[in-house]
Amino acid sequence: MTDETLNTLRQHIENLVESGEVEELQQVLAGLHPSDIADLFPRLGRLEQNFIWDLLPEEVTPDVLVELDEAFQEKVLDTLTEGEIGRLIDDMESDDAADVVGALDEEKAQKVLNTLDLEARREMRALLAYEEDTAGGIMALEVAAVRETDNVDQAIHRLREFHETEGVEDIYTVYVVDNDGVLKGAVSLRQLILAKPEVPVRDLMEPNVISVDTSTDQEEVATLVRKYDLLSIPVVDDHHRLMGRITVDDVVDVMAEEAEEDLSIIAGTGEENPGETSALRTSRERLPWLLTGLLGGLVSAVVLQHFQESLLQVIALAFFVPVITAMGGNTGIQSSSIVVRGLATGEIGLGDLLPRIWKELRVALLNGLALGLVLATIVALWLQQPHLGILIGLILLLNILIATVLGATVPIILKRLDFDPALSMGPFVTTANDIIGLLIYLGLTATFLSLQ
Amino acid sequence: MTDETLNTLRQHIENLVESGEVEELQQVLAGLHPSDIADLFPRLGRLEQNFIWDLLPEEVTPDVLVELDEAFQEKVLDTLTEGEIGRLIDDMESDDAADVVGALDEEKAQKVLNTLDLEARREMRALLAYEEDTAGGIMALEVAAVRETDNVDQAIHRLREFHETEGVEDIYTVYVVDNDGVLKGAVSLRQLILAKPEVPVRDLMEPNVISVDTSTDQEEVATLVRKYDLLSIPVVDDHHRLMGRITVDDVVDVMAEEAEEDLSIIAGTGEENPGETSALRTSRERLPWLLTGLLGGLVSAVVLQHFQESLLQVIALAFFVPVITAMGGNTGIQSSSIVVRGLATGEIGLGDLLPRIWKELRVALLNGLALGLVLATIVALWLQQPHLGILIGLILLLNILIATVLGATVPIILKRLDFDPALSMGPFVTTANDIIGLLIYLGLTATFLSLQ
Repeated sequence: MTDETLNTLRQHIENLVESGEVEELQQVLAGLHPSDIADLFPRLGRLEQNFIWDLLPEEVTPDVLVELDEAFQEKVLDTLTEGEIGRLIDDMESDDAADVVGALDEEKAQKVLNTLDLEARREMRALLAYEEDTAGGIMALEVAAVRETDNVDQAIHRLREFHETEGVEDIYTVYVVDNDGVLKGAVSLRQLILAKPEVPVRDLMEPNVISVDTSTDQEEVATLVRKYDLLSIPVVDDHHRLMGRITVDDVVDVMAEEAEEDLSIIAGTGEENPGETSALRTSRERLPWLLTGLLGGLVSAVVLQHFQESLLQVIALAFFVPVITAMGGNTGIQSSSIVVRGLATGEIGLGDLLPRIWKELRVALLNGLALGLVLATIVALWLQQPHLGILIGLILLLNILIATVLGATVPIILKRLDFDPALSMGPFVTTANDIIGLLIYLGLTATFLSLQ
Repeated sequence: MTDETLNTLRQHIENLVESGEVEELQQVLAGLHPSDIADLFPRLGRLEQNFIWDLLPEEVTPDVLVELDEAFQEKVLDTLTEGEIGRLIDDMESDDAADVVGALDEEKAQKVLNTLDLEARREMRALLAYEEDTAGGIMALEVAAVRETDNVDQAIHRLREFHETEGVEDIYTVYVVDNDGVLKGAVSLRQLILAKPEVPVRDLMEPNVISVDTSTDQEEVATLVRKYDLLSIPVVDDHHRLMGRITVDDVVDVMAEEAEEDLSIIAGTGEENPGETSALRTSRERLPWLLTGLLGGLVSAVVLQHFQESLLQVIALAFFVPVITAMGGNTGIQSSSIVVRGLATGEIGLGDLLPRIWKELRVALLNGLALGLVLATIVALWLQQPHLGILIGLILLLNILIATVLGATVPIILKRLDFDPALSMGPFVTTANDIIGLLIYLGLTATFLSLQ
């Protein structure tokens, strides 16, 4: 639904609310996908929101709640009682339910959990115990599993039962477990339907199933699903027991989330949401990075002050400060971004530090020579001082070499230390690059001037 | 498969090739997923590559070829005759086949097409005619469709026929068309299996199907699939006739590709591949952006030269050049990245230019006041010149306001002009930001000095 359609719809709904045409409003809502209702929600006033929420068919409210932006989800949850929230999450898949409970403050979450039956409460607690960004944190517990000792008839019976009790519509793959719940293989619905009823499941199943551990990072889950074109991936515990499954639609969300996270790390915008309307909250998200940048810039200022003698002696040295800092930043970000991408797709491994540096060094040498030559020529002609031109050109080459090596190593080191490698492209490292570049530039030119 | 496993496997394979143990080698290969063979390929020498390629079972080679990195795919295609390529793509899904043909040079592509039968050739030509980044460019033609006038029995019969002739394993959703091929609705396999044979498909189908046009941008396709949790999305032409379908696994690839593209645009690394080993080719991808940066830096140098009188008069002005340029860059990238993200997810629309500027202006005012105050205080205390401190603080505020507004508007304007909004975070705009920042800084301080 485009932006325009949403706005037209918003106006239509506002008119209907104002004139109190409840039936017409119900009809409009019935024709909308829960995702669209969730998109519409932030555009409406408080009055319309409450009005609409009460009119939503009971079976649609959980879907709308799940699709709402985090900020608006919180607002809606605030207006609901613990009992109401309990009934809502009872109709959700376990992973969505855990997300909702996880968004509540501890006390309210506890009260909501207490409204659930014992089994559901136990499940929720187990899910909430996993780290948010791991396979355990994003998996759903509703997984269609049959025993390896079942025959096809028994297996289909088991699936029908599962479908009825859990109410799950989409059975992507049927997993096969032994008596201890250990994952043994997988079988497709099609195979089960086509096979003779008395054939043991064990004979049909594919025994090599790609699975992940509950502690596997969600980004790695996404890489596996992408690489092997999977519709769903089973999650197992330390004893290889089947704990849950992650479906491709959740992986799609993970990928979008990771891409957004990378972008926000690079730009230093924190967890800011594009839909956020409060300038104060936005300002607070961005300010820490800007302060880092300001302090870094002030360190640069100190470096420049330290070399003020040289600057006064040859004011032309100041002209090329932006060239030197910008080129270090540009080349550093290029090699960082390639390594960050390679690490994300697995094309670059954690052991590739030395070969990667070697590769980047050769690239930096080629680019540094080309760019250094251009700069040296321009500076020599401009200032009519060939020596200074050659010197500044050589410094550019050196600066590019160092920035490139730093750019290639920092992400790998960050990843080894379990930080997000995208950090290496953020304001912090860019600022560090500026300072190193300035030190090289002014240090070497000052030495050169003192030798003259 | 981890990096380490791949390396162990590589060694094992090299040993087997050397000792000529063909049978053992065949066994190893049979146990590997085509994706893993493709991952292994770039790690092997030319000799091993050829050896393995010939040993691969015939039904596996197309899958391996599809999964290969573009660079290696080209190398393999170079060694094959047109007839061989023709036979390979005959066993692929149409979207993969079109990608392979699209990777060939025109003459060879023509020859390969001539080895196909008339129908396949016609299909390939049609697919190749679509823009690469559109729904038409990524769709597959193998779509399971039944007629709205069919009853369930006829529909199932039609699907079985489709399965046999096309050899497609995964039927995600069954689409319903009228006699002219116009998309009318969708029905799930489960519904067809559970319904009575004589029920018309028309009575079962869901008539509201989310579809895309052949010219829809692939990023928008991904947004829709993500938003509505779809497993596949139908592609229609101008007359709403069903042309093909895009499955979620292709969407996952699109999302990864788009995220990589954004990153490469931001960093200015062109179409460089992390697995690329040639330093010369890498250097060529990166150099254009660096040259842009160098020229931008030289424009900054000209600006600085223009103000050399002021610089010589108050050398301290030079100290704060990195602060001013860096802060403009930082704030500009923050507002750009939020807008780029919002445009990608649809949270920010093309009509949101003015409200967005207003929001960013308020954020910039808050951040600019805070940062300006910090800088003013530090400069005043450091240089013992309160007037200069206040002036530089005010200039920082102004610079942040301008950079923020530019950062928020440029992506929306780029998107309106049909360019990738991520361009606004790249080296080009960052450099422009530097120059504007310098002009403001030196222009205003020079005016102030001349007034003293």
